[in-house]
Amino acid sequence: MAMKKMKITALLVVAATLNIPLAAQSQEHPNLIMTKAGVEQVRKNLGKVPLFDASLQSVQKEVDAEIALGIDTPLPKDFSGGYTHQRHKLNFLTAQKAGALYQILQDDKYAKYIRDMLFQYEAMYQDLPVHPQERSYARGKLFWQCLNDSNWLVYMSQAYDAIYDTLSAQEREKLENNLFRPFADFISIGNPQFYNRVHNHSTWGNAAVGMIALVMNDEELLQRALYGIEDDGLALGGRDNDGGIIKVEGQKAGFLANLEEPFSPDGYYTEGPYYQRYAMYPFLIFGLAMHNVKPEMQVFSHKDNVLLKGVDALLNLTDADGEFFPLNDGQKGMSYYTPALVTAVDIAYQYGSQNPHLLSIAQKQNEVLLDQSGLAVAIGIRDGKAQPFVKNSINLTDGQDGEQGGVGVLRYGNEDLTLVFKYAAQGLSHGHYDKLSFSLYEKGDEIVQDYGLARFVNIGQKGGGNYLKENKTWAKTTIAHNTLSQNEMMHFDGDYETASKHHSQLYFYEDKNKDVQVVSATETNAYPGTQMHRTMAVIKATGFEKPFLLDIMKVNSATKNQYDFPFYFMGQVLSENFAYDSPATLTPLGNKNGYQHLYVEGKGTPATDNTQFSWLGNGKYYTLTSATDKSDELLLTRLGAHDPQFNLRRDAALMIRRKDSDNTTFASVIEPHGSYSPVSELSVNSDSNIAQLKIVHDDADYTAITIKDIKGHMSVFILANRNASSSKQHQLAIDGTSYSWTGPYHFTDN
Amino acid sequence: MAMKKMKITALLVVAATLNIPLAAQSQEHPNLIMTKAGVEQVRKNLGKVPLFDASLQSVQKEVDAEIALGIDTPLPKDFSGGYTHQRHKLNFLTAQKAGALYQILQDDKYAKYIRDMLFQYEAMYQDLPVHPQERSYARGKLFWQCLNDSNWLVYMSQAYDAIYDTLSAQEREKLENNLFRPFADFISIGNPQFYNRVHNHSTWGNAAVGMIALVMNDEELLQRALYGIEDDGLALGGRDNDGGIIKVEGQKAGFLANLEEPFSPDGYYTEGPYYQRYAMYPFLIFGLAMHNVKPEMQVFSHKDNVLLKGVDALLNLTDADGEFFPLNDGQKGMSYYTPALVTAVDIAYQYGSQNPHLLSIAQKQNEVLLDQSGLAVAIGIRDGKAQPFVKNSINLTDGQDGEQGGVGVLRYGNEDLTLVFKYAAQGLSHGHYDKLSFSLYEKGDEIVQDYGLARFVNIGQKGGGNYLKENKTWAKTTIAHNTLSQNEMMHFDGDYETASKHHSQLYFYEDKNKDVQVVSATETNAYPGTQMHRTMAVIKATGFEKPFLLDIMKVNSATKNQYDFPFYFMGQVLSENFAYDSPATLTPLGNKNGYQHLYVEGKGTPATDNTQFSWLGNGKYYTLTSATDKSDELLLTRLGAHDPQFNLRRDAALMIRRKDSDNTTFASVIEPHGSYSPVSELSVNSDSNIAQLKIVHDDADYTAITIKDIKGHMSVFILANRNASSSKQHQLAIDGTSYSWTGPYHFTDN
Repeated sequence: MAMKKMKITALLVVAATLNIPLAAQSQEHPNLIMTKAGVEQVRKNLGKVPLFDASLQSVQKEVDAEIALGIDTPLPKDFSGGYTHQRHKLNFLTAQKAGALYQILQDDKYAKYIRDMLFQYEAMYQDLPVHPQERSYARGKLFWQCLNDSNWLVYMSQAYDAIYDTLSAQEREKLENNLFRPFADFISIGNPQFYNRVHNHSTWGNAAVGMIALVMNDEELLQRALYGIEDDGLALGGRDNDGGIIKVEGQKAGFLANLEEPFSPDGYYTEGPYYQRYAMYPFLIFGLAMHNVKPEMQVFSHKDNVLLKGVDALLNLTDADGEFFPLNDGQKGMSYYTPALVTAVDIAYQYGSQNPHLLSIAQKQNEVLLDQSGLAVAIGIRDGKAQPFVKNSINLTDGQDGEQGGVGVLRYGNEDLTLVFKYAAQGLSHGHYDKLSFSLYEKGDEIVQDYGLARFVNIGQKGGGNYLKENKTWAKTTIAHNTLSQNEMMHFDGDYETASKHHSQLYFYEDKNKDVQVVSATETNAYPGTQMHRTMAVIKATGFEKPFLLDIMKVNSATKNQYDFPFYFMGQVLSENFAYDSPATLTPLGNKNGYQHLYVEGKGTPATDNTQFSWLGNGKYYTLTSATDKSDELLLTRLGAHDPQFNLRRDAALMIRRKDSDNTTFASVIEPHGSYSPVSELSVNSDSNIAQLKIVHDDADYTAITIKDIKGHMSVFILANRNASSSKQHQLAIDGTSYSWTGPYHFTDN
Repeated sequence: MAMKKMKITALLVVAATLNIPLAAQSQEHPNLIMTKAGVEQVRKNLGKVPLFDASLQSVQKEVDAEIALGIDTPLPKDFSGGYTHQRHKLNFLTAQKAGALYQILQDDKYAKYIRDMLFQYEAMYQDLPVHPQERSYARGKLFWQCLNDSNWLVYMSQAYDAIYDTLSAQEREKLENNLFRPFADFISIGNPQFYNRVHNHSTWGNAAVGMIALVMNDEELLQRALYGIEDDGLALGGRDNDGGIIKVEGQKAGFLANLEEPFSPDGYYTEGPYYQRYAMYPFLIFGLAMHNVKPEMQVFSHKDNVLLKGVDALLNLTDADGEFFPLNDGQKGMSYYTPALVTAVDIAYQYGSQNPHLLSIAQKQNEVLLDQSGLAVAIGIRDGKAQPFVKNSINLTDGQDGEQGGVGVLRYGNEDLTLVFKYAAQGLSHGHYDKLSFSLYEKGDEIVQDYGLARFVNIGQKGGGNYLKENKTWAKTTIAHNTLSQNEMMHFDGDYETASKHHSQLYFYEDKNKDVQVVSATETNAYPGTQMHRTMAVIKATGFEKPFLLDIMKVNSATKNQYDFPFYFMGQVLSENFAYDSPATLTPLGNKNGYQHLYVEGKGTPATDNTQFSWLGNGKYYTLTSATDKSDELLLTRLGAHDPQFNLRRDAALMIRRKDSDNTTFASVIEPHGSYSPVSELSVNSDSNIAQLKIVHDDADYTAITIKDIKGHMSVFILANRNASSSKQHQLAIDGTSYSWTGPYHFTDN
């Protein structure tokens, strides 16, 4: 009782500060996502807007099939992937859709379906114990984790709003007292370790509580949604299932804190695009609900429109097939075709600036929301307003104030070559230990991959669909990524708390000259005493068929180390210019930090000061040319050791190992060239165009690389290592030739 | 002189028999592929037939680009994949197209381009030595093998025909005396070991000589094309590069023999679809040339229209994406989108029965020939005549008389499940040692794969684009296939001559009941003293979401043996019901016959009398359920051992090893079920529907299998092992239940 009182006092303080009237506003329903006016408009346009009509028809078919099957609310039992999980998930998804159908078609069967389902849940919920699966740090009731219970409430709030007016006051009271309020309490005050954080889990929790608060017009719950639980009683520290820290000193909580902190001013979400996609739905849907019910709060304009910027950032973090770059924990294949992105695109169109480029994404999605925003999008498409969404190079800052590194995406042409360069913060508990790592794409195909996560989301046979232990032992490790590993250790020694304190630092980003685009960043904390400075340039040079990637990794260390520098190429090994031994039996490369998962399929040394290695992937040829030392080791590795459950893919890498070095520079070019078709059987331009790549100058001030092509044509790239100012003038003599230029780099190919 | 005389005598005898007038017919040009009338018709329709116009435009763009580059006829030097090879290949392809453009557009620049190119070749050919690369058993001059020289002549004959009338008599004489005749002589009497066989190489050689003979109106060459070289001076035996025997006793030669022998009456080509596709072009193009110039020979009607039947067989030997099943040496990815199949489809439409189903294939190809047949196809499509080409189940006999086994393709639905079962003859030198092997597809995706070949056709970096040694050490071996290996030996001990004497025997084939389709065959020669009888059924049973494959392999042997029975599943291992050890280091399974290439990733024993193993491939779930003994070994293998050049894919298998057995039966079901999407992250029906698979009866007369689903529902499949007659009545009591039926099998699922 004392605690409850305290909370109310706290809420009053907050409310007073923000000057929000606590008096109940008069409400009409639906008002949450669909509005009365919106529904009218939708109904007026039925049969006149092809994409909307098609979406309606498809949803109707789906929901009708579910109604025909009958309602099932089984006793919760399974992990994700199992029947009870899937069933409850399908229930809330279907109920939300049925709500839209009820409003649009005004067919009572949809209202009845929702009401019956809600009362089944109401009857069940009162005595429902926590979920029997014990793995989660925050077990739900319907699902094994509160996260999924929150999903349920976010969707069910919409369904409830849609049929609100069809229920008697008594029915509403019963549902609210026995189901919705206890439900909201359970996922919030019942589970502060879940609810009161800055984390995508909490975003879902906050949105869930907020959505039902808006429907029920419950100001106390709304305040809890927006600002969190004042006194959550949690001790500092504590870990969730992914190793994320639960309570951090001085941490704010609630929806607005979640909106504030993990988003950078550019709309980049620190966990990475896979989780941004997941979090976008509650952010936007609750944002929209707030916009509809509490327009005075201006949630969409919060932090300089960060929510709508987030949609743009997210769309830009995709390959040419619309698949999200799998930064940090990201399951490959997730794309802007997911329903969360249909929501995002439609809302961003309607409540942003009606950007016609978004319409072309909606066209590809071939589906719109069944509300006023979906209608607006479908009308835009019908009226021929769609324009191509062209993805350009983009540099997205990370961190609340945009000062914790970032992600640079360099694109050449129409996504003909795309570099994803990560120099970001840790990314909360879903972060990987891969400072200054990269991946490379040609259109929608990976040339050099980021592994992504070790998890089969929702596939019950694989650890209940949860994170597999190989996510920690492999996917998160440094050696699993295309970046530098020192002494077979992980960045920050794999320590999450240390890693969370640091971030890489942008040196410069420059994409104005489309033929020479550069991003450069430094990292000084991953290995104390060692500085890494990586510069990556997408260059279209004269005499080259396609653009290539120039990669310069300059390492300075106070101590002598072993450096491992892998390239996780995708495809079939074609040729190489060095000799290597092929072991008769395969043994792992190491025994920890990810090395225990790598078999050594080949071990050699450079034949010359240039190492060349070619592969064929997706009908395209690629060659890596790297300036190597005679004392380097070249390792051909294959993933799969210590993987008794076959949880890992059997992917390959070429790894350059440089031992006993303090200061050194790795300089490489990854060069796409030619093509092969198994239908025409024509092999075109299958050889590298590079005769030699050389580090011609390398000191504290400047690093210079020359690239000689097979016709003898030479290009030069010079990097100023100490001053990234775009106005700084430089001069450098190399082998008797004097170069002068302004700005952090110089490139010439003539 | 004596030899020449003898040949002419022989020709006279042949000619007399067939009543062919030897007198030169008066000729107009073009008359070979395009005809004067055809050209007129094409010209009349220009601008009126969209697909034809588009094809014309695309060819024109291509040829114009080549003309702009200028003609290059470099001194021959490279293997396939190298520049000189690619250049000469592009030359003849472009010249042929330029010829069509000249006729259609009547623009002299195309005629000039061809003439200039031909005279460059004429100047070069006279003193040209054989090709410097020495690998081939029949080295060409322009290319490393006569085969490619023959390609050149097949195409150049068409180019020459197209511009014949633009040349002076003197020019023609020069070309014919210095280039075409010596060229034709070189690939025929200069290389009888290449020319005078029944083999796809010889088909190209015969067609090449025949095509130029028709243009030049050279009866002697034409006879040599049709009937081969009478006295080739070759000793019996001899081997080509693929190990194929060159001279077989009593072997006929020439185009008609090649048409006669390797095609079965059903149009199946014994080397398999990949080579049939390759051979189809010379067969059809020379067939068409004969049709145009010598219609009285009725080549298209030869052997009951076998050429046109061959097109139909070939189209039926594709998966849902149009890719050929990689039986024997076949490079995966080759499909009916290849130009040879554009030719095949257009000619089959025009000179067959104007089958409207072929038009839908042409629509997919989105390209037609620039001649009267292409025009007819494009008009058919324009006029809306196209009908879907629905692929049904089909049983194709192998062997000249259709009595050497065959290939059975069982399809359920619209290629939802496709079984390819091979019980054929050896397939000449491109054959693999894989009696009674199979592969399985869901739409265009492999569920259980056939490896195909170990070669990267035309990719110079990989052994000059030629067959790699792993083709022999792996791809051709028995253990590389989904069939039975005994005592780690290959079928026929891998001896080509022995293998060529035998073929498997059809027991029965039955596809009338779409829900239970069965093909069954026996093999008694692969392992002397051992009989294999394999029965494969595609069954759609009550209570199952999708059709499954039932596989019964009954083995009888006079001796105790070790049997290995692999399934090369495609996808990620999901779960299994048996325990296995995962070795810390990977070692090869054996040391020869393909076993040296397989690493053992896991080794276990069945936990129960049913072994279950599930995987996820292409977003679909699959489970293998097999009746196993406690004494069986279960091996999880991975390809890649002893593969220092990375010539092999890292593919996996589950292998059942049964030791010390004489008579035994392997009974398994491969069951597709459910789906997974990384976009929706919905995992649907990921568990097998089978609770138990049991061999409930197995003796010399009958083998009976029961399949119990997870709801306890039981189905029974009984096979009569000794009598395949469809009218034979059977009766069998199993566990007190009496079954009676008529025909070779009985299935009931109620």
